[in-house]
Amino acid sequence: MQIELINTGSELLLGRIVNTHQQWICRQLADLGYVVNSQSCIGDEGEGIQAAIRQALARADMIITTGGLGPTSDDVTRDVIAQMLGREMAPDAESLARIEQYFVRLQRVMPASARAQAMIPAGARILPNGHGTAPGLAIEVNPNPFRPGGRRSWLILLPGPPRELRPMFSESVVPLLLKEFPSAAKFVCRTLKTTGMGESLVEERIAGPLQKLVEAGLELGYCARIGEVEVRLGARGEQGASLVLQAEEIVRALLGGLIFGIDDATLEGTVVRVLTEQGRTVALAESCTGGLIAHRLTNVPGASAVMKGGIVAYSNEAKKELLGVSASALEEQGAVSEAVAREMAEGARRRCRTDYAIAVTGIAGPGGGSEAKPVGTVFMALARETGTEVKRQFNPFDRETFKQVTSQQALDLLRRAVAGGTKAGRPA
Amino acid sequence: MQIELINTGSELLLGRIVNTHQQWICRQLADLGYVVNSQSCIGDEGEGIQAAIRQALARADMIITTGGLGPTSDDVTRDVIAQMLGREMAPDAESLARIEQYFVRLQRVMPASARAQAMIPAGARILPNGHGTAPGLAIEVNPNPFRPGGRRSWLILLPGPPRELRPMFSESVVPLLLKEFPSAAKFVCRTLKTTGMGESLVEERIAGPLQKLVEAGLELGYCARIGEVEVRLGARGEQGASLVLQAEEIVRALLGGLIFGIDDATLEGTVVRVLTEQGRTVALAESCTGGLIAHRLTNVPGASAVMKGGIVAYSNEAKKELLGVSASALEEQGAVSEAVAREMAEGARRRCRTDYAIAVTGIAGPGGGSEAKPVGTVFMALARETGTEVKRQFNPFDRETFKQVTSQQALDLLRRAVAGGTKAGRPA
Repeated sequence: MQIELINTGSELLLGRIVNTHQQWICRQLADLGYVVNSQSCIGDEGEGIQAAIRQALARADMIITTGGLGPTSDDVTRDVIAQMLGREMAPDAESLARIEQYFVRLQRVMPASARAQAMIPAGARILPNGHGTAPGLAIEVNPNPFRPGGRRSWLILLPGPPRELRPMFSESVVPLLLKEFPSAAKFVCRTLKTTGMGESLVEERIAGPLQKLVEAGLELGYCARIGEVEVRLGARGEQGASLVLQAEEIVRALLGGLIFGIDDATLEGTVVRVLTEQGRTVALAESCTGGLIAHRLTNVPGASAVMKGGIVAYSNEAKKELLGVSASALEEQGAVSEAVAREMAEGARRRCRTDYAIAVTGIAGPGGGSEAKPVGTVFMALARETGTEVKRQFNPFDRETFKQVTSQQALDLLRRAVAGGTKAGRPA
Repeated sequence: MQIELINTGSELLLGRIVNTHQQWICRQLADLGYVVNSQSCIGDEGEGIQAAIRQALARADMIITTGGLGPTSDDVTRDVIAQMLGREMAPDAESLARIEQYFVRLQRVMPASARAQAMIPAGARILPNGHGTAPGLAIEVNPNPFRPGGRRSWLILLPGPPRELRPMFSESVVPLLLKEFPSAAKFVCRTLKTTGMGESLVEERIAGPLQKLVEAGLELGYCARIGEVEVRLGARGEQGASLVLQAEEIVRALLGGLIFGIDDATLEGTVVRVLTEQGRTVALAESCTGGLIAHRLTNVPGASAVMKGGIVAYSNEAKKELLGVSASALEEQGAVSEAVAREMAEGARRRCRTDYAIAVTGIAGPGGGSEAKPVGTVFMALARETGTEVKRQFNPFDRETFKQVTSQQALDLLRRAVAGGTKAGRPA
């Protein structure tokens, strides 16, 4: 089966935005056992879009386009495809009603141009948009005038905004794909997510022991992200599930506590889940991560049951006033020190009356480093009833990577404490 | 001039990584006035790479490839291109010496496979790699057997790792491009970034007044992001700069304060810059945004000069303990109310002793809504010396979009206050 992805948008070729659709869509398909054979980007000009789609129709069973379905004049994908296929455009009552409802729900006046999004080429199947106005479209081109023997192709048109595209893909495109092209799909895939060890070392530890299963058909992949390494176990055919299961057992035995979840699990999601199960709470005291740990935890639905409060103490005054850090620790040890990390964590735990508190203080850079404490130096503390532990880390990266890696280490410190802990008392 | 970009790497089509090369290279070229006409991704198989490059050679003046130059068995780009062009491969002494030095500097033993990277097709120009082992290559294909009339093309082969590719591009590819294709269409591009109005309404307001300039050659584009709409103004040729300037004046007159910056500006960057210029400070009190506003502000280098502290008050206890919100406001009005937003902002300003404080409290969902205050309801407050203003917003989106949109509105509230303000006193 041949799948091609065409991303439209002049902003992509002008380098204004990163093409996240490519990665996301390719990933979804790969996890289902489908592989995208090629991907391309073209600008918003109708002629170029037509040419690219015509070429893809000559080769592919499924062509997925992104972008160009919106209400503005540079959104031309729907029209040029209808024209190329010789299909009439007509307003779709249900889509129009959905668009009108969308503006009612937002309590905003609907602009006249929004109606264009309800114009649908004849014979197209509508993919409802739960998070925006433009519906997606699925068009079966059968017979396909551009392909040898007229062999059919499916043309899937998705809107550009990720929060509209992603649910639409999962809810509408995946079922269509599984129904229309079921034979390509027998693929079992499981991703073990780890943190705390680099990609090469993870591979060194597990590649040898998995070798026999690889020879039997296991597909083994690694993916390094910031502060995480994913181990991907895949297999096709009747034995697929059993191969993946055996592989997972081996990897779990070798990596143990480095594994924090499977597939789409996030570290923050795991932490919130375990805290919720145990009925425990956490507070945060952040300096160099600037609120990122709080942001990550509060992205998890239900976080309010466990995350009571966070203090972003970006100045010495805030560390004293909001967390009760002592002037002596700040003066004698400096804001980036073991003593201050410890007092921050204990202050946050005391003031928010939680079971746990984590604190981080460090030098994100680009300025502020010294010989003894170069840019990238971090102290992180975990406070709980039984005491406070402090770790020193060294994360010499650019500012945003630094924040991400440091937040990951801090969340992992909490995860490990929580996983090992029992119901703790809270300070009065 | 026609430029095509070909990114090789099976991990791209499996969706394991985001293609950041595309955005970076397209952006570098756009800023110099060159436009990439198409981009595509293909896997690591030699046949597919050859086919894609042959097609590109039939059309383009310059073809840039990324990836496939390394030492492992799936790095085949160099070889398949030499084969396709009928060029002999031979070791390059200088490249080999550089590779050997690289391992000496790292104090590591050089693996035998590393030598393959010094094999160079006859006639290729070497692009030195200052940050890794694989040199880049520039090959002038002249005459070009794949193009009508044998018209020449340049083929530029770059390594995959960004820290190797980027300096190589700037140091070697840009000078080559400027020397070989100096006359390429002068392109001027300017992006105005707006917040506070939807894409359709922005277009409705500016499209008519810009029509004459569009007829004269102005390229007008829109891009909607979460809480932002970009208006892109581009033009080619001698009149390009003047057309874009005229267009910008019109857009500024019509959108005024909705515009917060140009090109790469971020709302948080604008806020930090203006606060820094004015010598003012800000504190945050976040409930439903959960630390995202603090995270965004602290992503900006130098934020510590203006952002003193933030409190993520995710529970009523934290609102009372950390911000001094009154029990009566919480009981009588509820945590999501005008009164609590006001007290949160005033409490943060007082405790952090800042010029400004912003506070947000709302219902992110999925749970927690009521008829009077449905999911998506937000109150945001801005406190300063002259008083506190509170706004009610309604952002009925999924949790992460809700946080993003709400943080955007809160930062914009601050931006507008700061833009209009004069030096304010701080609470003692």
